Amino acid sequence: MFDFTFHNPTRIVFGKKSIAKLSALVPKKHKVLITYGGGSIKKNGVYDQVALALKDHDFIEFGGIEPNPRYETLMKAVELARKEQVRFLLSVGGGSTLDGTKFLAAAIEYTSADPWDIPTAQTQVQSALPIGCVLTLAATGSESNGYAVISRESTNEKRAFFSELCYPQFAILDPETTCTLPVSQTLNGIVDPFVHVMEQYMTYEVNAPLQDRQAEAILSTLIEEGPKVIADPNNYDARANVMWCATQALNGLIACGVPQDWATHMIGHELTALYGIDHAQSLAVVLPALLRNRREQKARKLVQFGRRIWNIDDTSEDEVMEKAIVRTEEFFQSLGMKTRLSQYGITEGLEQVGIRIEKRNEKLGEHQDILREDIDAILKLCRD
Amino acid sequence: MFDFTFHNPTRIVFGKKSIAKLSALVPKKHKVLITYGGGSIKKNGVYDQVALALKDHDFIEFGGIEPNPRYETLMKAVELARKEQVRFLLSVGGGSTLDGTKFLAAAIEYTSADPWDIPTAQTQVQSALPIGCVLTLAATGSESNGYAVISRESTNEKRAFFSELCYPQFAILDPETTCTLPVSQTLNGIVDPFVHVMEQYMTYEVNAPLQDRQAEAILSTLIEEGPKVIADPNNYDARANVMWCATQALNGLIACGVPQDWATHMIGHELTALYGIDHAQSLAVVLPALLRNRREQKARKLVQFGRRIWNIDDTSEDEVMEKAIVRTEEFFQSLGMKTRLSQYGITEGLEQVGIRIEKRNEKLGEHQDILREDIDAILKLCRD
Repeated sequence: MFDFTFHNPTRIVFGKKSIAKLSALVPKKHKVLITYGGGSIKKNGVYDQVALALKDHDFIEFGGIEPNPRYETLMKAVELARKEQVRFLLSVGGGSTLDGTKFLAAAIEYTSADPWDIPTAQTQVQSALPIGCVLTLAATGSESNGYAVISRESTNEKRAFFSELCYPQFAILDPETTCTLPVSQTLNGIVDPFVHVMEQYMTYEVNAPLQDRQAEAILSTLIEEGPKVIADPNNYDARANVMWCATQALNGLIACGVPQDWATHMIGHELTALYGIDHAQSLAVVLPALLRNRREQKARKLVQFGRRIWNIDDTSEDEVMEKAIVRTEEFFQSLGMKTRLSQYGITEGLEQVGIRIEKRNEKLGEHQDILREDIDAILKLCRD
Repeated sequence: MFDFTFHNPTRIVFGKKSIAKLSALVPKKHKVLITYGGGSIKKNGVYDQVALALKDHDFIEFGGIEPNPRYETLMKAVELARKEQVRFLLSVGGGSTLDGTKFLAAAIEYTSADPWDIPTAQTQVQSALPIGCVLTLAATGSESNGYAVISRESTNEKRAFFSELCYPQFAILDPETTCTLPVSQTLNGIVDPFVHVMEQYMTYEVNAPLQDRQAEAILSTLIEEGPKVIADPNNYDARANVMWCATQALNGLIACGVPQDWATHMIGHELTALYGIDHAQSLAVVLPALLRNRREQKARKLVQFGRRIWNIDDTSEDEVMEKAIVRTEEFFQSLGMKTRLSQYGITEGLEQVGIRIEKRNEKLGEHQDILREDIDAILKLCRD
């Protein structure tokens, strides 16, 4: 395996009624800004639980952070937080609210220039407010990492950044809060973690058998538990298992000492920016196409994936690989996901994806060998 | 699964030549105490690497910490550290040196009474010096948890304690440092983690499929990679894989939301205290006997273990369980471990184990139902 550093300081507080523990986790001495999204937390009882736990704290609120959180919206929160001298941020919602809150944490402290530098100019974050999190949708893994993805409406850009200072201090995960999610969000919570694991696992072999098996543990559990939450949204145990899979999929652990890909995400981000399809929708379309296009480079791991995850016992490795890709597609379809862009009515202008990625001089894939013509070929497979 | 909290702040720095990174990891402003064991680090080049990395630091040393570190020895280090106003501890060695160093971290600050309170009176640690660690033998998992086990020679006691303040701030894991270990220590590095996993996995079913698979990932990797390090002590990749397994086995992750047993360890600790056999030697003897004695209580997990880890495909669950126990014993034997006390010449006085555990009013097992007569029955199976 490769040399690595692993450090994940986030405290996970997992289980029923865990929101009540906020009271002891959020510092009392400073003003707190509670951030949230479209307001579902005010309907499903989560907000009331948070407000009750923080009844002796001094807090203000900022709502309306979008899915794919927007720079334009977040800058209003930056202004509010600076004015109100907020010193602690509490994100209540899913990965988008939390990603937006991570941007806030860094942007509030970044007073020397435009905070859009943070995700674009690879400006290293020098200071950030502490963040806590009540997670109501487990999908992105953001609750236990230092990554955030921010979109800018005016330029149709979607960009990521990382900082050690942006790990939440704590993340409260109460699986009950996920029981009222709409089906599309529940789907995100299965497909996004599945593809996160694939980005860190489906590369080339570096003799890291524990990391491989830890990745496979998550994949197998998502395949087993995912359909249960679709069939019965109130199945607490299945909700809990899917939620824990999502956290484990992107907390840095399975990335230790192994190569990573992330081309599916990079291409998917462009599809979201250009066509507005959900993050997980884009991933379910791109992953099978990418695997077909990169079969040769990923052969060993693709065979291992077919045998261990899908129990395909053909002797022909070609057969195993093809069947593994088909089974993965069928898994997404069985959950109710579309796997072709044409099913969303998207057939034109796809060459823009490659043009935009090339313009930013980004090299995709674990070998940095996915060039513009490869992206075009992958998107052709995505289309129909 | 059960509700849980998970928090592991240790920074892992893993790979070749990683000791050089000490220079940036150890604070320069305070006096550092380097702790070590029998002095092998002065022969195998590890000490020289540490001293070179810390050439601009102010450090003193304390060597001679024993395997199963002794209170009597450690109190001498407490005296030295207090006198020299040490404010940072750097453990260079294996789990025993590190466990001893954790005791020091708490004991140096515990000035109001006898520090033996810390492991015995369940005195909660209120303050502890920060600890860093260069690990030269991965076995106990101590490099990434807050546990320590300390022995007191004068009373033949071996006692454990835990504190959130005793997690190392960082742990440097260079697998190359393990290549010169004697075979017996290499064996400890396979058997101890294997049994750590079993204590957290081989209990009863609580619908925690990810944790089960994460545990199984470690077991399968130890079974695969363990024999390689025995066959070729210089196999870097296998050393790295075994080392990472040992850390993952006891960093709290696979314990999230599941019941735990630890009876094998508790009985094993008494055997070490009474007869002086190695920690791992005691575990390899006790585990198979405990599994036979607790077959009924552990039936579901024992069948799962047999099918998933040992690929036993008998239809009879009784057959699967029996074969799983035999295969586990054979695995220990194949590495060169003895699996019966009589092979160590230990046949008399075994009832002392149960008497001592009963006297401390400790209830063993995941159901707290392993009583003195059960311990006697387990030890009978251990004997021959």
